[in-house]
Amino acid sequence: MFDKVLNSSMLWKAQEKQLVSFELINLRDFGLGARRRVDDTPYGGGDGMLLMVEPLLKAVEHAKTLTKSPKIWLMSPSRHIWSQQDASEAASSGGDRIIICGHYEGVDARILQFVDDVISVGNYVLTGGELPAMTVIDSIVRLIPGVLGGAQSATIESFSSGNNLEFPQYTRPEVFRDLPVPKVLLSGNHATIAQWREQHGGNVVT
Amino acid sequence: MFDKVLNSSMLWKAQEKQLVSFELINLRDFGLGARRRVDDTPYGGGDGMLLMVEPLLKAVEHAKTLTKSPKIWLMSPSRHIWSQQDASEAASSGGDRIIICGHYEGVDARILQFVDDVISVGNYVLTGGELPAMTVIDSIVRLIPGVLGGAQSATIESFSSGNNLEFPQYTRPEVFRDLPVPKVLLSGNHATIAQWREQHGGNVVT
Repeated sequence: MFDKVLNSSMLWKAQEKQLVSFELINLRDFGLGARRRVDDTPYGGGDGMLLMVEPLLKAVEHAKTLTKSPKIWLMSPSRHIWSQQDASEAASSGGDRIIICGHYEGVDARILQFVDDVISVGNYVLTGGELPAMTVIDSIVRLIPGVLGGAQSATIESFSSGNNLEFPQYTRPEVFRDLPVPKVLLSGNHATIAQWREQHGGNVVT
Repeated sequence: MFDKVLNSSMLWKAQEKQLVSFELINLRDFGLGARRRVDDTPYGGGDGMLLMVEPLLKAVEHAKTLTKSPKIWLMSPSRHIWSQQDASEAASSGGDRIIICGHYEGVDARILQFVDDVISVGNYVLTGGELPAMTVIDSIVRLIPGVLGGAQSATIESFSSGNNLEFPQYTRPEVFRDLPVPKVLLSGNHATIAQWREQHGGNVVT
C-alpha cells in the first residue's frame, strides 16, 4: 500500500532528487513468539484487538537506529488535527520522523509514553493509520524546498496561511457546453484579472 | 495506488462480502487528441496546469453509465470538511458515488456545474485527490452494516457522535518496562471498569 503511493508522482520525484527518503518497517517483523503476534485482547473487556506495546516499541527502537534524533508520531484519533501549518512547520524544520500507523481497534495506551505527538487527519474514523500517514507525508513533502518546481512554489505560498480555498480557474475551451470562461480572464489585462481573482477568492475549488 | 488500498484489509473483505464494489476509471482514457491530453494552462495566467473540464466530464459520463443515480463528488480544497457524520450518512443512505480526484494544481471550475459536492478531508493541501478519495471511501465502507463483525459494531457506535476520542486501552503484558496496566482494569469488576473508562474518556487514543 505504501510502496505504490510513495513511489508515485511528487513523492517519487522528491526521492529521486534525494530531498526525502522513506523506510518502511513492518510491525509483524517485531511480533512476539513464533507466530509473530502483534495484538491481543483488551484488559477489562471490550471489542476487537489492541496492538501490543512491546512489538510497537521494538519496531520504533529499530527505526531509531536508522535515524538521527527523530520525532515519533502516532497516527490515531486525537485532538491534534493535522493542518497546513503543521505541514509547513514540519517541512521547514526538516529532520526525521518515525510515524506509527495505529489501527482502528486500538493501541495499548502505554505507547503514548514513547511518542512525541498523536496526530489525526480529521474528525472521522479510519480502519488504520496507513492512509493518514501517507496524507501527512504528502502534505509535508510537497512543501520541502526544491520538491515542486519554482513556478508552483507561489501556489504553495498562497495556501500556507491555512486557507486552502482559492479563486476559480479555467482552461480551454473558452466555451464548454454553453459555459463560458469569464470574459475578464481572456482580457490579458493583468490588473483587472488580479482584481477579479481577489474578488472571487475563497469561493470555489483551486 | 488505488488497487493496493482497495484490495487490502477491510475494503477487500467488504468486496468479498459483496457489500461494496469499486470501479476505477482512468482520466487519461478520456483525454483529448492523440496524446490523450487532460490538462492545460489557466486562462488569465498562473502557475501549473489545470485539469480540463471536457475529459473530466467525459469520464464522469462514462461512470454514470455504470451506476444508478449516483452522487458525484469532487475531492478538492473546499469548505466542506469530511466528518464522521458525513461517513455515517453515506453508509446508511447507500447508493452509488462517483468520486473525482482533482489534483493540486487545480481543476477547470466549470466542473462544479456537474458535481453534487466538493469535499475536502482537512485543512491541508495534498498533491492530488487520490488519498482523500481513499480516506473517504475507507471511512464510509467500514460503517456499512455487515462489513465489520458484530463485535466491532459497538465500537463504531461510540464514534458516531463525531467524537472519535475514547478511553485508553491496554493489553498484555500487565507491566511493561515499569509501566503497569491500571489496576482497575484487572479487577474483573465491570461496574468499576465502566466508571473508570467514562472518567478517562476523551483523554487518550482509542
